[in-house]
Amino acid sequence: MGAARPARRRDRNHEDLMMTAQASSYVSHRRLNERLAILATYGATPAGGVNRQALSREDADAQRRMMQWGAEIGLEASRDPAGNFFLRLKGADPDAPPVLSGSHLDSQPTGGRYDGVYGVLAALEAVAAIVESGVRPQRSIEVVAWMNEEGSRFAPGMAGSAAYAGARTLADVLSCRDADGVTVKAALAQMREWLPDLPERPLGQPTGAYVEAHIEQGPVLEREGRSIGVVTGIQGKRTFQVALQGEAAHAGTSTRAERKDALLAAVNCIDALRAHMSDAEDIVKFTVGRLTVEPNAPSVVPARVVFSIDLRHPDSAVLRRLGDAVEPIVRRRAGPCVLEVTELSTAMSLEFDPRIRSMISQAAEALGISCRDIPSAAGHDARYLNDVCPSGMIFVPCRAGITHNEAEFAHPGHLTEGARVLADVLAGLAAQA
Amino acid sequence: MGAARPARRRDRNHEDLMMTAQASSYVSHRRLNERLAILATYGATPAGGVNRQALSREDADAQRRMMQWGAEIGLEASRDPAGNFFLRLKGADPDAPPVLSGSHLDSQPTGGRYDGVYGVLAALEAVAAIVESGVRPQRSIEVVAWMNEEGSRFAPGMAGSAAYAGARTLADVLSCRDADGVTVKAALAQMREWLPDLPERPLGQPTGAYVEAHIEQGPVLEREGRSIGVVTGIQGKRTFQVALQGEAAHAGTSTRAERKDALLAAVNCIDALRAHMSDAEDIVKFTVGRLTVEPNAPSVVPARVVFSIDLRHPDSAVLRRLGDAVEPIVRRRAGPCVLEVTELSTAMSLEFDPRIRSMISQAAEALGISCRDIPSAAGHDARYLNDVCPSGMIFVPCRAGITHNEAEFAHPGHLTEGARVLADVLAGLAAQA
Repeated sequence: MGAARPARRRDRNHEDLMMTAQASSYVSHRRLNERLAILATYGATPAGGVNRQALSREDADAQRRMMQWGAEIGLEASRDPAGNFFLRLKGADPDAPPVLSGSHLDSQPTGGRYDGVYGVLAALEAVAAIVESGVRPQRSIEVVAWMNEEGSRFAPGMAGSAAYAGARTLADVLSCRDADGVTVKAALAQMREWLPDLPERPLGQPTGAYVEAHIEQGPVLEREGRSIGVVTGIQGKRTFQVALQGEAAHAGTSTRAERKDALLAAVNCIDALRAHMSDAEDIVKFTVGRLTVEPNAPSVVPARVVFSIDLRHPDSAVLRRLGDAVEPIVRRRAGPCVLEVTELSTAMSLEFDPRIRSMISQAAEALGISCRDIPSAAGHDARYLNDVCPSGMIFVPCRAGITHNEAEFAHPGHLTEGARVLADVLAGLAAQA
Repeated sequence: MGAARPARRRDRNHEDLMMTAQASSYVSHRRLNERLAILATYGATPAGGVNRQALSREDADAQRRMMQWGAEIGLEASRDPAGNFFLRLKGADPDAPPVLSGSHLDSQPTGGRYDGVYGVLAALEAVAAIVESGVRPQRSIEVVAWMNEEGSRFAPGMAGSAAYAGARTLADVLSCRDADGVTVKAALAQMREWLPDLPERPLGQPTGAYVEAHIEQGPVLEREGRSIGVVTGIQGKRTFQVALQGEAAHAGTSTRAERKDALLAAVNCIDALRAHMSDAEDIVKFTVGRLTVEPNAPSVVPARVVFSIDLRHPDSAVLRRLGDAVEPIVRRRAGPCVLEVTELSTAMSLEFDPRIRSMISQAAEALGISCRDIPSAAGHDARYLNDVCPSGMIFVPCRAGITHNEAEFAHPGHLTEGARVLADVLAGLAAQA
């Protein structure tokens, strides 16, 4: 419940607390938002954002703080071989598949203070509320921070959840390298040195359910004045890497005819791709977010350019058609350069479990919190969890839909409402035998 | 004289040596090419090229070796405040303005084994030959390695010669920063620690003449089977930096209409510039060699792109017109991004001193070495020296015109012929009272 809420609501909630002792009643607005502010200091940028790369020192510092908060209420911390971080509240039936909730602690290089970390702290707050409610859950509940969701250090992203769900092999994830050539495996060894007291656990497990809270990363909830989005599914996404190999040459002496300019070839390719992906309805999401030039010197004709393509569409058939057009388009525009196109990831559109969706909307309605169904335009770890257990997501509004940006902002009151809904959903899921 | 030369030529040269004791007769093919191979080890790359950045450890190592070679024949080493490196052969009249010859020791990041370093070693070889000829020159002769010619560590290039000739202030050069934020001033302080026994000298001096030997960096001499190019002048060059400021956004959620994609704006700008600069005669040299993207993450719409423009044309009027078109063209194509265009350097076409040019061609003809007049498409330190003293350049062929590339190659015989011509030219210039 937000600081700005009228006193009448506060009183009614107080009555609820007295009558029902629902988990949501124990959610602390102050604790949740204080913790968000504390974690935002790990990797804080001068412009008020966050740069907390997966398996970095800042990530380790954030995990250590999470361990401390978990220990205060008896949660057992652990790390799996893919670098996923867990805090476990033991249920009455510890052998029953646990209920998981969380998101990720890593951020974009110039990321915001909410993307990912909110879902982890909302889950911790929900579990704290369940503990304080005095009702012991039947199933165990695990707060989870998935490794390298953003993919900004190790491409592609959602690596930890993919390994957990078996969508990628552990060996594949561990062999990924960052821009400095450091593998996930080596970075994990470094994490073990930074956090020597964090026990190891096996990869994966039978999982009862997964619920992830996240900022919307779009403008819909704010525009409509709703506090909760019941996420219906995730739009499909295909990612590619395009490499163009030309030839280095002197900018002052080599003629246009003899050049093999990898950057001009890339410009040609991107221009053609943009034209092809520009739909009148503005539904296609086409992004070239990363582009590197070698040797990248002002007076040398570029020898090599590598760029990324991020392509999304809610309609799997359209996504399939557009993605299949990438290779032929760039092939026609590569000029004298040698072309290599690699599809890095393919994820078609998905729908979340109807039962989890209805639990979320019922919890919100019971608390008098306004909600609506909403599709997710962004990918999330819940995509992979959905393959192994009933899964769902809770969105809260963020200002002007701005995200992956240091200016990202979400209202504290909305964040608390999201955690309250999550607490009741998790309590309900964990109560089931 | 090349290893492949017929014996008859060798004999005739031997006769010349007996009769005239010209400086060129003392040029050692073996010593020159051995020294080239030795300096190529400082910054050697796996692909057989060189990465020797200005004021780097490798640069210092190369300078130390130069000091040793100079000391063997009595040359005095020194460094001026702009980081230029000198080896001085004292003339009979040490107060007369000296004759200078050299080039640069720094290279492109994936550079070759000849660009720059050949001119420095050809000058050292010519001076060694003059010393061995036993004729003491009237004027002093200084072998020089100009600081940061390539501009790949500190943009723009030709920084040391610009400071020496007064084309840029020392303060301006010293405040330049590399990609890591290190200033020239700080890098020079580091050089002083690496080479504590290298005396300092003042910046600039009255200079009698300057002659620079260099590989052609074009295909003309090789194609025509000539060993020497008498450089007539240098084509003009204008360089720019274009910065496009957009806005970071999530690749999966932000719509095309609301994006301010700095990379798509850059693609648009470069595409339009390329079209404008494409002359039917293929004389214009238009290069975007450096382009950086921020934050450069696959799932973030690029917030900022900065790219370089290197524009050259032998006709100053055409260069002026094309360069003036850059800003209006990118302004029309910047879309929703904030645009900043900075012209970094402007150098119109120049002609070298006719007297130096005729000395070079006469020296070549006297030695029976085939030569021709040739313009320089690339910029060189001789550009700035030409402002303060009669200057000229000697080109030797390089294979297929390939340069600024690890595959750069020049035939040892051609390199020696260039040093022989240079020796006689320097001896002639230094003999003048």
